[in-house]
Amino acid sequence: MGSIDYERIRQIGTISESSRGWTKQLNLISWNGRSPKFDLRDWAPDNTKMGKGMTLTLDELKALKDLLNQMHELNETV
Amino acid sequence: MGSIDYERIRQIGTISESSRGWTKQLNLISWNGRSPKFDLRDWAPDNTKMGKGMTLTLDELKALKDLLNQMHELNETV
Repeated sequence: MGSIDYERIRQIGTISESSRGWTKQLNLISWNGRSPKFDLRDWAPDNTKMGKGMTLTLDELKALKDLLNQMHELNETV
Repeated sequence: MGSIDYERIRQIGTISESSRGWTKQLNLISWNGRSPKFDLRDWAPDNTKMGKGMTLTLDELKALKDLLNQMHELNETV
């Protein structure tokens, strides 16, 4: 067993919440004291546990934003 | 050991490529014959192996798009 230290530098936002209260969040997180990375991940209620997710660089977020803005199914209005 | 069947329904795009040729891709993927989900994940060259990633719903992608469009650091022009 090991441990990972992390510091939540900035909470950018939440994109969904499950029936059990887990939320999928985009944050800026520093892992083990290293320079902060963007991080898209599931978190338990009160952020006490973390689930699956991935870190992303600023350039990856920019490219992802461009992709999402090109997807027709995300542009539909009600 | 088990196996996971998946079918790549649609390749939406690639947001980065590592020096070893792995790419981070957004796809629409059907896992084990179930209804397709959006999927953000690392893939080996030629898509022969998959790495860490996560599935996302359409609503989560919409919320993520809104978040990314609000982030000032993604709006900087060169």
